[in-house]
Parts: sequence; structure tokens; C-alpha cells
Amino acid sequence: MRVLVVNVNTSASMTATIARAARRNASAGTEIVALQPAFGAEGVDCAFESYLAAVGVIDRVVTYRERYDAVVLAGFGEHGRDGLQELIDAPVVEICEAAAHAAMMVGRTYSVVTTPRRSAAAVEDRLRLAGLDQRCASVRATDLGTAEIDRDPVLAMEAIIGEARLAVEEDHAEVICLGCAGMAGLEEAITESLGVPVIDGVGAAVRFVEALVGLNLRTSKVGAYAPPERKEIMGWPLSHHLQLGGPHR
Amino acid sequence: MRVLVVNVNTSASMTATIARAARRNASAGTEIVALQPAFGAEGVDCAFESYLAAVGVIDRVVTYRERYDAVVLAGFGEHGRDGLQELIDAPVVEICEAAAHAAMMVGRTYSVVTTPRRSAAAVEDRLRLAGLDQRCASVRATDLGTAEIDRDPVLAMEAIIGEARLAVEEDHAEVICLGCAGMAGLEEAITESLGVPVIDGVGAAVRFVEALVGLNLRTSKVGAYAPPERKEIMGWPLSHHLQLGGPHR
Amino acid sequence: MRVLVVNVNTSASMTATIARAARRNASAGTEIVALQPAFGAEGVDCAFESYLAAVGVIDRVVTYRERYDAVVLAGFGEHGRDGLQELIDAPVVEICEAAAHAAMMVGRTYSVVTTPRRSAAAVEDRLRLAGLDQRCASVRATDLGTAEIDRDPVLAMEAIIGEARLAVEEDHAEVICLGCAGMAGLEEAITESLGVPVIDGVGAAVRFVEALVGLNLRTSKVGAYAPPERKEIMGWPLSHHLQLGGPHR
Amino acid sequence: MRVLVVNVNTSASMTATIARAARRNASAGTEIVALQPAFGAEGVDCAFESYLAAVGVIDRVVTYRERYDAVVLAGFGEHGRDGLQELIDAPVVEICEAAAHAAMMVGRTYSVVTTPRRSAAAVEDRLRLAGLDQRCASVRATDLGTAEIDRDPVLAMEAIIGEARLAVEEDHAEVICLGCAGMAGLEEAITESLGVPVIDGVGAAVRFVEALVGLNLRTSKVGAYAPPERKEIMGWPLSHHLQLGGPHR
Amino acid sequence: MRVLVVNVNTSASMTATIARAARRNASAGTEIVALQPAFGAEGVDCAFESYLAAVGVIDRVVTYRERYDAVVLAGFGEHGRDGLQELIDAPVVEICEAAAHAAMMVGRTYSVVTTPRRSAAAVEDRLRLAGLDQRCASVRATDLGTAEIDRDPVLAMEAIIGEARLAVEEDHAEVICLGCAGMAGLEEAITESLGVPVIDGVGAAVRFVEALVGLNLRTSKVGAYAPPERKEIMGWPLSHHLQLGGPHR
Amino acid sequence: MRVLVVNVNTSASMTATIARAARRNASAGTEIVALQPAFGAEGVDCAFESYLAAVGVIDRVVTYRERYDAVVLAGFGEHGRDGLQELIDAPVVEICEAAAHAAMMVGRTYSVVTTPRRSAAAVEDRLRLAGLDQRCASVRATDLGTAEIDRDPVLAMEAIIGEARLAVEEDHAEVICLGCAGMAGLEEAITESLGVPVIDGVGAAVRFVEALVGLNLRTSKVGAYAPPERKEIMGWPLSHHLQLGGPHR
Repeated sequence: MRVLVVNVNTSASMTATIARAARRNASAGTEIVALQPAFGAEGVDCAFESYLAAVGVIDRVVTYRERYDAVVLAGFGEHGRDGLQELIDAPVVEICEAAAHAAMMVGRTYSVVTTPRRSAAAVEDRLRLAGLDQRCASVRATDLGTAEIDRDPVLAMEAIIGEARLAVEEDHAEVICLGCAGMAGLEEAITESLGVPVIDGVGAAVRFVEALVGLNLRTSKVGAYAPPERKEIMGWPLSHHLQLGGPHR
Repeated sequence: MRVLVVNVNTSASMTATIARAARRNASAGTEIVALQPAFGAEGVDCAFESYLAAVGVIDRVVTYRERYDAVVLAGFGEHGRDGLQELIDAPVVEICEAAAHAAMMVGRTYSVVTTPRRSAAAVEDRLRLAGLDQRCASVRATDLGTAEIDRDPVLAMEAIIGEARLAVEEDHAEVICLGCAGMAGLEEAITESLGVPVIDGVGAAVRFVEALVGLNLRTSKVGAYAPPERKEIMGWPLSHHLQLGGPHR
Repeated sequence: MRVLVVNVNTSASMTATIARAARRNASAGTEIVALQPAFGAEGVDCAFESYLAAVGVIDRVVTYRERYDAVVLAGFGEHGRDGLQELIDAPVVEICEAAAHAAMMVGRTYSVVTTPRRSAAAVEDRLRLAGLDQRCASVRATDLGTAEIDRDPVLAMEAIIGEARLAVEEDHAEVICLGCAGMAGLEEAITESLGVPVIDGVGAAVRFVEALVGLNLRTSKVGAYAPPERKEIMGWPLSHHLQLGGPHR
Repeated sequence: MRVLVVNVNTSASMTATIARAARRNASAGTEIVALQPAFGAEGVDCAFESYLAAVGVIDRVVTYRERYDAVVLAGFGEHGRDGLQELIDAPVVEICEAAAHAAMMVGRTYSVVTTPRRSAAAVEDRLRLAGLDQRCASVRATDLGTAEIDRDPVLAMEAIIGEARLAVEEDHAEVICLGCAGMAGLEEAITESLGVPVIDGVGAAVRFVEALVGLNLRTSKVGAYAPPERKEIMGWPLSHHLQLGGPHR
Repeated sequence: MRVLVVNVNTSASMTATIARAARRNASAGTEIVALQPAFGAEGVDCAFESYLAAVGVIDRVVTYRERYDAVVLAGFGEHGRDGLQELIDAPVVEICEAAAHAAMMVGRTYSVVTTPRRSAAAVEDRLRLAGLDQRCASVRATDLGTAEIDRDPVLAMEAIIGEARLAVEEDHAEVICLGCAGMAGLEEAITESLGVPVIDGVGAAVRFVEALVGLNLRTSKVGAYAPPERKEIMGWPLSHHLQLGGPHR
Repeated sequence: MRVLVVNVNTSASMTATIARAARRNASAGTEIVALQPAFGAEGVDCAFESYLAAVGVIDRVVTYRERYDAVVLAGFGEHGRDGLQELIDAPVVEICEAAAHAAMMVGRTYSVVTTPRRSAAAVEDRLRLAGLDQRCASVRATDLGTAEIDRDPVLAMEAIIGEARLAVEEDHAEVICLGCAGMAGLEEAITESLGVPVIDGVGAAVRFVEALVGLNLRTSKVGAYAPPERKEIMGWPLSHHLQLGGPHR
């Protein structure tokens, strides 16, 4: 089975991190192909960048010319899943929703811990729209900015563990979903420290698309995700029209 | 006061229709500037096209170089309002939400009537996310395709009035919000036929941004709509990098 | 345009304060007529007084003999809006709902700050019934009694700002709606101190009825707000039958 | 035990009917005192009349000078219960809520059947505010006007049974709450015809206040229903100031 | 009237305590028959034991050969009420639901205080399923284990009063429902200390089944609680097949 | 990997059918062990039988002495999942929840089709408690009794397809979850006829426990599913104490 794992960010190093997480969690027979958009933010931090990333991810998948069986949308709570589901038949699973599904299978309640604060709004909206928010005890965010996290990853990890602890102790979360990719050792540290299952959305999403493919399930095409009418769309696909050496703002 | 009314579609004739609706409903001192994206679908019909439109609308507004006081996002239930709110301080009102706000002021319940069926999902999601769905009696859609509507506008109008009648008689809607722009005479026909207020989102949105500007209210910048960190974004703004004569799919 | 702004309290000085707030926020062409009930509490503080005020406001409006275009019900969260909507065709907007509508247009979440604690229940009920509570982060009240507020307005203002700060910092409110009329300078003080938009319901309601009148919208008469059957009602209108020099409790 | 059963209407014959229903359902040791307001509509049919009735009911109870143990507010879904709870310590139960409580004890879901259509909105709002709407399968109304019901009670009863049947068959209601007082034989006719428990709110409310008194429970005074500050209220109690032979509209 | 009060625990001393609470609160003409299952946990503390108790309670009631008029299921939030309702016609009221019903009649909001923490989840689920959770301000639990409570009942009572105080002061509960049976003097201590009504579910349930019997209401048999088809069930009733002197785990 | 698939019914033929469904959908390396309770109903049809089945399933799993990695609870919407999760660490997935999880991954809305009508209530309750009901368009049931289904399986299949069609056409379901085990060919027939994905809960549950085991996730033990205190429980495990040749009712 061949699974596209599409980073929403244009950072190649983050794509590599996500690819490693995907491969570490995939079944033996699953081949992971990690992709990233041809344009957009290095690190998606807000709604504007998320819309741009949605278009970038869709562009990347529809211009991908090899065979694949399923897609993992690797942006925690980012936009675009439904748009991609319209355009392809293969299952598409987004990593925030995947983490919530897994969490609800192993606990009565779960919390999401993310950075920074403004990401919490995006995650809450994603869970609300997906109908997965009822067993969500809280979405907690450290108030660290990206710069601070880069400067001091140990401090960042402690801040995240601190929020996870509050989620367990004050919000009565039984499972923690990590809303920030790629901090080596973070899952183990939280489980050790708090004794709760910790879920990384990339791994969960990979296993769930494997399950869907194994069940021969494809995206329903009778309603919201039916293929759009074929039509000419000005400038689409964007990656074929962009001159990326051109003028920046 | 100067209000940007941004069509989500790239059809110039639809932009003109929306501009007329905006001007017909604006106060005496309000100047309407009608804009449209530089890329995207002529008529947005699905989630994929809506994400592309969100980016197109944001691109159009941030590259607009004149002064303005507020923005109306003229795509019924389309994406992008929050992204735009992050990037500018001036009030941004989306027309589906505007219609719902107005409807809740003049009736106990309201329904949205739209075409086609798949648009209903987008409208429902928009209202749910905006927290405006509780007094929504129903979102009803005719099952006409765009082609059928173009071929036979009289049939389309009858189908819409038929759904509005069902909304009033079966769902107990007291107000009808029109989720389809630009059918001349439609509002009058429904009000005459059913005796209920009918709301066109463009007009409502124009009046509401006038109200917000009059109250000196601007978008809150302490939470979800805070300005993103300044950073280089690959390919942005897209309209500066696109070679639109280039290769299409 | 002529707008009746009806105070729910029988205090003439409060009516004057409300009139000033209305005029400060109205458009150039809008004439504000400030009214108050002929009976009821000087300051409405509880549900009993609110029901009495509802009847007093309705009595005042239906015995008003001049022309008007819309009504603002100036009692934050008080009863009576739907009753008045049954009896007249012109738009009626209540100031708590108006504040919530405006808040949802400029922020993702809002809080209401009011005095005293028991008012919070009335506001919560009003928002729940109106279907406007989903984006409400909290309704917070200072625990000051009316007497304390009168005695020490500076203390009161500090207490309100303190609750607004908690709303922003702990409940993640992005907008503050003021549920207490007439503290000069309070809005500016909160905005300065917390950097969030602050909404006064009277101003918002005036601007929204202007918008509705501008859109030619009147209250829907097909459902809950249809005119009641004409019938004799014992003692109605109360103001015509009351001998107010008579025996008090 | 002495229970005040307060009709919201000023019709003496309806008060007598309600008194009979209360006495038929009361325990052996319970004395029923039936009261009605000194002013207001003969039959309350809309929100305006309901607010007036709320004030009338409160006026009647606070001017009642004998001892009593509890109050039943006999207006299906009408206003005023919380206002009365503020002013007295004895338990107050409203008949629509009482019916819902009883229904939830003997079935998984219930429907309310009422006349006319506009009453359904009031009932829905009452149940929503009381937090009793989740197991409510539907609020159904016949579309008969009061005049038609008076003219042809057999037709009315058939219409009500018809709606009850639809509630059971289409909405899967397991219990029917009657939202219209005083049709002799109606409960038996529905139970015979549909095989479901039928609940009359007056009887349920009488039994529930007996239960509360038996448990020594009184209305909580620490929050929303705390007694208001003592103050002079202009024109209150209204019944002491009204000259009811005076000018009517 | 004869009411079965069925303890979910197999502890005879707890059955006696529950019987006393029931008798203290019952009307003069009500005979209380206290029963307990023939198998299961001495004290039910978790979902597994609760399922076993549900079966034990049902077994006890269906093998009871005397006449009775109603059943009180005396396990705060435990399973089995709906199963019992299928098998008998007489009213069945569970004590957690009874407490919530009573609380909603005398206050705007209520909290449940229970021990230990894990019981809170069961109570929340019971209230959610029963549709009685909307006016629930909180379900609070002391973190004491059963052993600690046995060892030091004074400490336990203080811990419970402490949680009740937080419920009133922080969660704005107006009524406290006690989710732990049989601490003599606890209700009085809380009311004295906090000034709020305190509800013991056993008493409330007894009074409510009296009310239902008085109203001639029996469980609806048209839907979820219809009698199951008669069939042979292997091992049922369990109490007839169990050899309780046999091998234990 | 070794997965216990536990039928809630005591019918050996149904256990065999479920085992076939599990094996057909399992991954290559997964060994399916099909179990059934030692007591209870041949076919579970109501809440009482479901509670008995919950205890029977838990009894069967805790007395199973071999190694296993996960458990599938094969009773559509039946009780007991949380009880089992308390007693073991290995993941436990219930088939109704599994079907809902899978449905939400491949469609925007789903419906459950089941027999008979009374099962719909159990399924609705299961989904509500699990927090998976928001995207559920409907739970539909044929009104066929078990006897009719046995007598005429073709009629039954047509009835189920008919309800599935109504779910798609009237409730706008995009995915159908089958709430009735073991009708050969039913999934294919619905997909062919309606063009929507059809989900069998057994297959979905097997694939999801494989995913959880692959992710090294085990049930959280910090909250609701923590292991109960060790204690003597009278009669437990029931299967060790039952004399099944003994007296039946």
C-alpha cells in the first residue's frame, strides 16, 4: 500500500520529520511518500497561511502523477481535507481528527496540547466541524512563540508537559493528543510523567488510512464530497503557473 | 465610507451583479468598490474551489492599494473570512453570516435556500462555526445543477420559491435567507408569495459593516485574528507570481 | 429615521443617559426619542422587576401616538422583546442581543461583563434563547451591590475592568460586551487597558435598527410574532387605568 | 398542605376547570386554592399576553394574605415562574415543566401537543430554558384558532388526537403531554387510541409540589432566585392601583 | 402504596441505611420494602460492578413475588433503570435522576457531589443520557478512596462539604445533590454551612414514585421500554442458577 | 496479533457468522478468536438482555486464559465496553462506535440502519454517550420483528435497503452503517443500489484494534477506566457459579 503523507508546510526538514513519524508507525507493507506544497509558509501559524496551505496541499496531490492508495493530510487542524476529498476517491485522513478518533477509542476524554495559543482556535474549530469535540476536555496551548521554541526546545518541552499535566489534573483528560509535530521524545516523556496514552496524529492517521484501505472503503461521492463539475479554473493548478523566482512582498 | 465588496468568483458579470446589489442597499454616503480575485473558478461550487477563492480574495484585498473602511466577503458560506480578519484591521463581514444575523433580528427562526444541494453543506458548516445555527430551521437546496439554472431561470426561480415555501410551511421558518446571488426579482416574488421577510446577504453585509464602522469597531486583535508574524511566504502574493497565460490542466 | 429607545427602568436620569448613548452612536439622519415606562422599578434588578418592565415597555410603546421607524429595547437582557414584536411591525432590537451580534462580527468569542451576579443569569438566558450563546466565552459579574456601586463608582469601574481582564485572560474572550449602562469612560478604559473592542449595547442596537430600516426589513408576521387576535384585555393598557397616587406597598 | 393553583388567564370558568383538575389529582391531605389575576387576557394566547399574565400572577400571589405551602403556575409554558420564585420561599412549579419532568420519568421521549401553532414556540422556549428539551421529540400544534375550538370541540379533540398520533408514529414520542387545559375526556381518549401515557400538567405539578413540600425543599435563595432588594416600585402592586372600570382600548 | 427500594450493593448494612432514608422521606401511607441483589459487589465502585449490579437488581425485582406499586433504583447513577422498565409496568425511578429533577424544581442550577473521582464519570453519563445535564453546573468528587472514607468519616464529610462549597462559589450551583448515600447529618451540615437546598436522591425518588402512582402513570410501553419478546434465556434468572458457595476468583 | 471477537449473543451460529466477518476483514497477520458468553439471550433484543450480555461478555473475557492483544465487542450498540476497559489493558473497540468512526472518515454524514425499531434507541444512546452522534444523520429501523426476518430474509433485506435509501435521499446520509450482523450480500446490495459506502462494524472494529495495537496504544488507566480496587465480589465470575442445568423460569 502506498500512502501520501502531505506536509502543509513548505519546510523540507519538517517534511522529513513527518516522514519519519509516518514510517515509524506504518505497517510493514506500507510505503510512505512524503510531499510538501510548492508554495506557502515554511511553518503554518494562522488561518490565512492555513488556507494557502490547503490550496498548496490540494495542488500538490492533484499534480502528483504516481499511483497511491490514500492520503494523510499532515497539518494539525489545518484546512483542506474536504476539498481534497472532492477531488480524489482514495481515503483522506487529517491528523488532528485522526488523533481525536484514536483518543476516543482508548479513553473517555482527551485534551489537545499545542503551541501557540492561536492554534488552539483552529483545533477547536476543526474538532467542532468534524463532530469530534464532545469528548474533548480541553485544547490547551503554551504561550510560547515559535521563536522561543526554536531558541530553547527544552523549555518548550517542559511547557508542553506542563500543559499536559494541567489537562490531566484539572480538565480530567485521560488521553493527550499532541498538536505539535516533531519533538523527539515528547510522547515518551509525557507518558512517563503523567501515565496517560499520548497520541501523535501522524501515526494515527497512517494506521487509520491503512484500516480504511483494508476495508475497501473510499470517500463517499453522493453528497458533500462528490467530484466538482469539470471546468476551466483560472490559474489552476497554481504550481504550473507560478514563477517562484518572481517578486515577493 | 468606502467598502470593498469582494466577489469570490472570477466572473466579471457576477461581480457587476453583486456591485449593483451592494449599491442598491448601501447608505447614501457609502462608496462601493467591487473586486474579484485574479485567479480561481468563474463560479465557486465546491469546497476545493472555495479554498482557492479564499486565497484569491485575501490576495485581492492585500494587494489593493487604496484606502477602505470595511470589507464584505461576497461568497455565500465560502471560506476565508477569518484569514482576512487576521491580515487587516477593518471590519470584515461575510454575507451568509450577515443574512443570519439580520434574520435573527426580524424573526424567531430562519431558513436558507440555496442551489445546488452540495452548497447546503457549506452553508451549514459556516453557520455552525459562526455559532449562528441554533435558530436556523433548515438549509434547503433545489436539486438543480448550474447548467439547468442557466438554461431555464424561470424554472430555477420556481424551484427556489418552492423550497422557500417548504421552509415556511414544514420547517416553520419565519424568514428566508437567499443563498444564491443575483436573481432579479426573486426577493419580491418570495415575499409576495409567502409573506415572509427575505434577506439578501450582500445588502445585509453592507449595512452591517456601515454599522460597525459607525460604532468605531474594528476586528479584535488579541486572539484568533491577531496579525500573523511577519515572514517570507513562498509565492505570496500569488497574483504577483502567476503567469496566467501559462499551461492549464 | 425616528427610533424609539425605551428604557426599561423608570428612572428619568437613566433614560437621559441612555438617550445620550443612543444619540452619540446614531447616524446623522436618525432622530432618537427616549421613553420610559409609566410604572415599574427605578432600576430593574431581578426577574420579577424585568417582567414588570416588559409590560411597562410594551405599554409605553403601544400608547405612543407619533410615527416611528424602529424600537430599541434598552434593558440589558430584560424580557419583552418578543411581546413587542407581536404588537408592532417596525423592527425591535434588544441591546444585549445587539451587543452579541456586533461582538460576533469583530471577534471569535466575546464575554459579557455585568453587575450584579444575579444579572448574569438573565443575560445567559437571553443569549441562550436568542441562539447567540455559542461564541459567548463567559458572562461575568462583579459581586458589588447597587448600593456599593452608587457609593463608590471608581471602585465599581475597577471591579468591572477586573472582570473584563479575567474574561480576556482566562476565558479567552476577544471582545467585551458591557452589560451595565452609563458609566462614562468605561469603554475607553477597558480598551486602553486590555486592547480589546468594547461594545455598548445601546449604540449597537441603534445602528442595527438603522440597518434593518435601511434594508426595508420588518418583523416577520407568519409565526411567533404574528399579531395577536384583537380582544378586550382587562386593565389594558395599564397606564390608562393606574391611579399612581394610590396606595403603595 | 395548602397549594395555590394560579390560572394565568382571567377567565373564571377556566380557573374552575383548572381547580377541578388540581383537586382530582391531589393527595388526600392537600387543599387546593384556585386563584386568577385581577387583570390581563381572558385567555392568554401570545407572548405579550403572557408577560402581562406573569405580572398578574405575581401580583395575585404577593397580595394573597393567607398561609400556603406551595404554588402551581397554571399556564402551559407561560412566563413568570422565576419572578415568583424570587419573591416567595415556597416551591413554585410551572405546569409545562411539570409535565416534562413526569414524562421523562415514564418514557424515553415525549411530545407536547398544543393549540394553536404559535403556542408551540412558547412551549419550546420554556423547555429549552428549563433544560428539559433534550428528550422532547416534538412540540406539535393543531392549526385551529381559538374560535374554531370553541365552535366545535369535537373537531378540536379529533385534531389534537391526530397530532398526538403523528407524535407517536412519526416523532417516536412515548409519552404525550397535553398543552391545552380542560378538555374533559381527552386524556382517556388519547391513551385508548394510542396506548401511551398522557400527562396533564396541572395534576403533575400538584403532585410534584406535594413531593417538594414533603421533602422540606424550598426554592434556593443563593443565586438567581434570591429575594430582590426591598424598594419602592411605582404602581406596585398593580391591583391596588388599577381602576378597572376606567377607559379600555 | 408499596414501594420497592432496591439497593445496588450487596451490603446489608447499606440496604438498611437506604431503607431508613426512604422511610424518613416517604408519605404516611407508603410502605417501603428494601431489597438487595443476590450477587455482586458489596459496594459498587465502577462500571463493571455497575453492570453486574444492574443485572442483580433486575434479577431481584423479577424474582420478587409480592405485590408492589413502584420501584426506586437506589444506586446513584448506576445502570439498569431502562432494563427494569422493560420488564415491569410499575414506575421505576433512579435516585440520581430523581435528585436532578428535584434540584431543577428548586434552583436554576445544581451540582452533584460524590466520591470518588471515577464516580463522577458515571454520574455525568447518567445525566447526559437522561437529558438532565443542561442545568448541571458541575459534578464534583472528593479524591478520597473508599478506604479513607471508612477510616475517617469526619474527614470525608469535611471533604464533601468542601466540594459543595466550591460548587456553590465557583460553579454557581444553587442546589447540591448528594451522590453518596448514608452519611448521617451531611445534608443538614451543608445547608447550614452554605445556605443551599441539599437533595438526597433516595428521598426524592420515593416522593416522585408516589407522585407517579398518584397520577396513575405507568411506564410507556410503545417504544424503548416495550416488553421484550418472551424467550428462554440461558441461566436466567441468575439467582436461581447460582451456587454461591462455589469457587470464587 | 491475536484479537478476541466477543459475540454478545449466546447463539453459536451467530458467533460463527461474526467470526467469518472478522476474518474476512482482518489483516494477514491477525488471528481471530471468536467467543460468546456462557449465559444470556440467544439474540439480544432489548436493554435488559443487553445488560445481561455485558456481564456475560465481561465474564467470558476475564475467564479467558490465553494471551490476546485486543478485544472487539461484537454487539451493535450493546452495553459493557467501559466495564471491560476497566478490567483489562488491551484495547477494546465496540462495533457500533467503530462503524461511526469509519463512517466519519469517509463521509460528512452517516446513518445507521438496524432492525427492529427498539434497537434504534440503544444505538442512539450509544452514539450520544460516545460523543459520535453529531454527524449521524439518522438511526433508522425496519419495523420487522425477528420472527418475520427469520421467515423471510429476502423481505428483510429489501426492507433494510429501503431504509438505507430513505437515509440517503431524505436524511442526506453519505455513508450507511449496518446495525444488523450477518446478512450475506447486504453490503454489496446497498452499495450497488445506492452508490454509498457501507460499513460493517465488525470489520471496522477489527481493523481499528489492529491500528491501536500497531500504535502501541492501550486503554488509559488514569480516569474512568482505571482498574477497580481488588475485592471479593459475590458470585463472580458468574460462569464459575452457575449451574446451567438448573431451574429455568
